[in-house]
Amino acid sequence: MPKIAYAQMKVLAGHPDVNTRKILNLIYEARAGGAKVVIFPSGAVPGKMIGDTESQRSFICECLDCGDEIAAASKDIVVFFGNFDANGISSYFCARNGEFFDENKLPWAVKCYIDYDFESEADFLIEHFSIPFSFDSKPYYCAPTNRPLISVGAVGVQNTGKTIYTFNGESAVFNSRGELVQYAEPFAECLNFVELFEIDKMPVINPPVETEAEKIYRALHYGVKEFLEQIGVGKVVVGVSGGIDSAVAAALYVQVVGAKNVYLVNMPSRFNSATTKGLSEQLAKNLGCKYFVVPIQESVDWTVKQLEGVGLSVSDFVKENIQARDRSARILAAVAASVGGVFTCNANKAESTVGYATLYGDEAGFLSALADLWKYQVYDLARYMNEKIYGFEAIPQGIIDIVPSAELSTAQNVDEGKGDPLRYDYHDYLLRAFAERNLTPEEILLWYAAGVLEDRIDCKAGLVEKYFLTAQTFIADLERWWKAFTGMGVAKRIQSPPILAVTDKPYGARHESQNGTHFTRAYRELKAELIGGK
Amino acid sequence: MPKIAYAQMKVLAGHPDVNTRKILNLIYEARAGGAKVVIFPSGAVPGKMIGDTESQRSFICECLDCGDEIAAASKDIVVFFGNFDANGISSYFCARNGEFFDENKLPWAVKCYIDYDFESEADFLIEHFSIPFSFDSKPYYCAPTNRPLISVGAVGVQNTGKTIYTFNGESAVFNSRGELVQYAEPFAECLNFVELFEIDKMPVINPPVETEAEKIYRALHYGVKEFLEQIGVGKVVVGVSGGIDSAVAAALYVQVVGAKNVYLVNMPSRFNSATTKGLSEQLAKNLGCKYFVVPIQESVDWTVKQLEGVGLSVSDFVKENIQARDRSARILAAVAASVGGVFTCNANKAESTVGYATLYGDEAGFLSALADLWKYQVYDLARYMNEKIYGFEAIPQGIIDIVPSAELSTAQNVDEGKGDPLRYDYHDYLLRAFAERNLTPEEILLWYAAGVLEDRIDCKAGLVEKYFLTAQTFIADLERWWKAFTGMGVAKRIQSPPILAVTDKPYGARHESQNGTHFTRAYRELKAELIGGK
Repeated sequence: MPKIAYAQMKVLAGHPDVNTRKILNLIYEARAGGAKVVIFPSGAVPGKMIGDTESQRSFICECLDCGDEIAAASKDIVVFFGNFDANGISSYFCARNGEFFDENKLPWAVKCYIDYDFESEADFLIEHFSIPFSFDSKPYYCAPTNRPLISVGAVGVQNTGKTIYTFNGESAVFNSRGELVQYAEPFAECLNFVELFEIDKMPVINPPVETEAEKIYRALHYGVKEFLEQIGVGKVVVGVSGGIDSAVAAALYVQVVGAKNVYLVNMPSRFNSATTKGLSEQLAKNLGCKYFVVPIQESVDWTVKQLEGVGLSVSDFVKENIQARDRSARILAAVAASVGGVFTCNANKAESTVGYATLYGDEAGFLSALADLWKYQVYDLARYMNEKIYGFEAIPQGIIDIVPSAELSTAQNVDEGKGDPLRYDYHDYLLRAFAERNLTPEEILLWYAAGVLEDRIDCKAGLVEKYFLTAQTFIADLERWWKAFTGMGVAKRIQSPPILAVTDKPYGARHESQNGTHFTRAYRELKAELIGGK
Repeated sequence: MPKIAYAQMKVLAGHPDVNTRKILNLIYEARAGGAKVVIFPSGAVPGKMIGDTESQRSFICECLDCGDEIAAASKDIVVFFGNFDANGISSYFCARNGEFFDENKLPWAVKCYIDYDFESEADFLIEHFSIPFSFDSKPYYCAPTNRPLISVGAVGVQNTGKTIYTFNGESAVFNSRGELVQYAEPFAECLNFVELFEIDKMPVINPPVETEAEKIYRALHYGVKEFLEQIGVGKVVVGVSGGIDSAVAAALYVQVVGAKNVYLVNMPSRFNSATTKGLSEQLAKNLGCKYFVVPIQESVDWTVKQLEGVGLSVSDFVKENIQARDRSARILAAVAASVGGVFTCNANKAESTVGYATLYGDEAGFLSALADLWKYQVYDLARYMNEKIYGFEAIPQGIIDIVPSAELSTAQNVDEGKGDPLRYDYHDYLLRAFAERNLTPEEILLWYAAGVLEDRIDCKAGLVEKYFLTAQTFIADLERWWKAFTGMGVAKRIQSPPILAVTDKPYGARHESQNGTHFTRAYRELKAELIGGK
C-alpha cells in the first residue's frame, strides 16, 4: 500500500538552483510523510518558458548537475521530475536510490501518461504537464484510464517576454473510472499525499465551480502578484481617468500590493470633465490610495508653442496624442521612477486589437494586466470586485455607468454622452472574431449578407440593425476596424508592454507581421455585389 | 535547346493578389522572351513572413485561387512557383498548359533541389529559397551537383513584427561543376534568361566582392527604403545629439528619402555642450536637411516642479530619464506627427544588449535601423558613407572623434572626455558573446582565468589588462553587464521598435523571457576561487 506524494510546486523559470533547492526539500518532506513516490511537474528544474537560455550550454550543464543532485537525494523514494536531457531537450525523469531509472523497471509499475501510450499492467499513471491557465478551459477533466491517474502541474508565472502566463497547477487524483477524488487548491503550492490502493475507494468529488469573473479575477490577482515579486517591484502607479479600465486596474493592484503602495494620478487637461475628475477622486478615497492631481495643460500648450515656434503647424488630432504621451511618458514614468515603482498600462483587448491607444502614451507601462479582457469582461470584473472583494462600491457606480471616452477633445465630451468610437456590445464580438478565431471580413460580410452575423459571432441579436442602417455603413465600419487591426494595431502591439494572459489567445502569443491590410478577392466581390463598385 | 527564365521578383508578404499580378506579367514576359520554363521563388504567392495570417482560411483559399490562375496562364511554358497547398503548408508547384504537374513528368527532367535528394537523370536542378540576407553569410556558393543548377530567391523586405529582414535574391546559375556562370544583381528585381545546354560552356565568373561596410550599407539602405514604402511613409524625423549613432542614421535616411524629407531635431538641455550642438548643426548643413533646435530644459524643469509640487523628490538619475523621454515622447513624436512622418530610433546593438537607453525615450521610434550593428560597425559605416556615398565629410570628423556620451548629466561631459560607461573596443565583443553566441559569464570567466579571453571573443589583445587591473574589477564589470543584458535589457527590448536585421541573430529573432539574472553554480565557484567569498 504505497503512499504517493505529488508536489504542486512553484517553478521559477530560468533558475534551476532555486527550483532544485525546493525539490530537495520537498523530497525530504515527502519521505518524512511516508511516501514511497514523489512526483514533480514537467520542467521542474529549468522551468518551461526560458527562451534562448536553453541554447546556453552552461545553463544546460547546470540543469544536468541539478538532476544528478536530485537523483542522489532519492534514497528509499522514487522521484519523478522534469528536466533537460543531455541534448537540452525537455524530458521527464525517474530516480530511486541515487540512480536514474526507466520507470517500467520500478517495483510497482508507473507510466508517464504524456504519450497516452500506456500498457495494461501499469498500476497507476502520471500526467505531468505545464500548460498555462486559460479561464475558458475545462478544469480537472480526465478520460477514464482503467487505473488511477495522478496529474501534477506547476504553479507560478512564467513568461515569453511579450506574454505573462499564470499556472494554476491543476494537480489532481482521478480513480480508474476517470473520476476526480482529490485536487490541489489552484494557484497554491502544496505537497499532497494519496494512498495508491485507496484511490478507487475514495469518494468522488466535484471540481470547484467558479464564475467567469471569479476565475479571471483570481488569475489576474495571482499573475500580478507573482510577476511583481519576480521583478522585485512593490510600488505601483496608476493613471486614473475616471474611466472603467483604470479604475479596475487600480482596484486590482490595491488588492495585490495594498493601498499604501498604490499611487493614483489624475492628469487633467482642459478636456477632462468635472464628472470624471470627481469620479477619480472618489475612487482614490474608496480605495484608500495616495492620490495626486498633476495637470498637463501647461505642458501640452508649451509643446504646441515650441513646435509652432519652429514653424510647424499642429493639428487637433496631433494635439490629442500629445496629451496622451504627456500623461504617460512625461508624468507617470517620472512619478514611478521617483517612488521607486512601475506604472501600469490599462488597455483592454478591444483597444489593443484596433490600436485605439497612443504609443508612449496610454499604450505604455510595465504590464498590461487587462489586455486579454474584452471590454464587457472589464465591466464584469468591476462588478465582481465591488460585490465580492470590496463588499461596497469601491469602484463608483458612476465609473461603471459613464460612457467610455478618452476625453482628448470636445468631440469626446462625456457630459454630452460622447465617447469612444467603439460600440463595445457589438465590436467586442467582431474584434474577437478577428483576434481569436482568425476570421476576416470575408466571413463577416458573408454572414451579414445571410443575416446570421450576430449568431455566428455570439453578440446580442438586433445590434447590427441598430448600429448599421445600410450595407454601406456596415461595410465602412467593418473595413475601418479591419484596417486598424491589421495596420496601426500591429505596429502598436510590437511596442506594447507584456500582457497578462487569461486565455490561450493573448496578443504576444500571436505571430504578427507588419504587412498592412489585405482584403481577399472574395470579400471584394461580395462587397461589390452588395453595394456596387469594387 | 530550351531557354529558361528565372524571376528574382519582389514578393510582398501577405498580398497574394499583388504577387500574382506580378507573376502573371512575368510569365508573359518570359514567354515573349522565348523561355520554355520560368522559375519563381519559394513563397512567391503568399510571401513567407505572414505570421498568423496563415491561419486565416479565407487567405489560404485566395492563395489557392491565385495558384489556379497561375496554372491557367502556363500555356506553352512550364511555371515553377511557391504557394500554399490546400492544407496551408508552404509548398512548391509546377504547372504547364493549364495543369499542375509533377516535375518529373516533364519532357526535360527538372528537379527541386531543396531536399538535396536528386536523381542522376535530371537535366538541371532548381534551388528555390527564401532566406533573409545576412552580411556574414557566404554568397553565391554551390556544391558541385553534376548538372546545372538554377537558384532563385525573392527580393524585398519581409518582417516578423519585431524584426525586419531584407532579401537580396541571390539568384544565380551554376554549371555542373558548381561554378558560378551568371547571377542577378542583389536587391533588384529582374527576369533573367539562360540557355540550358549552354550553361556548361559559359565562362565562369566571380561573385561580387564587397567590404563589410559596403554590404551593411546596401542592406540598410534597401531595407529602410522598402519598409518605408510598405508602411506608406515618406518623411523622417531624426533626433540628432551630435553623437555618432544619430549622425549615421541621419546620413542613411537622407540617402533613402532625400534631404528635403528628413527633419533633424536637436534638443539640448543644460547638459549639452556647445561642441555637440555645433556638430549637430554642421551635420544638418552638410546633409542639407531641415534643422530645428527645440530645447527641453524648461519642460524638464516644469516636470520636476510638478512632481515636487505633489510631494515627490526627484533624484538626479530620474532627471536623466526625464530628459530622454522629453526628447522622444514629447518632442520627436509630436514633430513626426505634425509633418506626417515617423521618427527614428538610433540605438546600436551594444546599447540594446544592455538596455543602455530609456524606454519611451531614446529607445522609442518607428524602426531601429542600426540596432543589429555593434558600435564599431556604426563607426565603419560613418567612414564608408563619408568616403563612398557622400564623397566628403558629410558626417563631421568631430562626430567620429568625440567620446560617445548621452550628455544627461555633468558626469557625462564630453569636453572633459567623459561619456558612456561602455568601452566599446572591449564591450562590443563581450556583449556579442552573450547576444550572438549564447555564452555566459561562466565561459567568460574561465577564459579570463586561462588568459585567453581576448582571443576567444575576438577583441584586440591587451584590452582586458588595460581596463581591469584586478580580477575584482573584471568580475564587477562582467556581472554589471550580464545583469543588464538579462535584466532591464530584456524588459526594454520587449517594448522596443522593430529592428532592421543585417545578421541572422538580431534581437527580435531571439526568444527572450523576462526571468531575471542567473549565474550558474560553476560560475559562482570559479569566482570564489578567483576572489574568495561566494
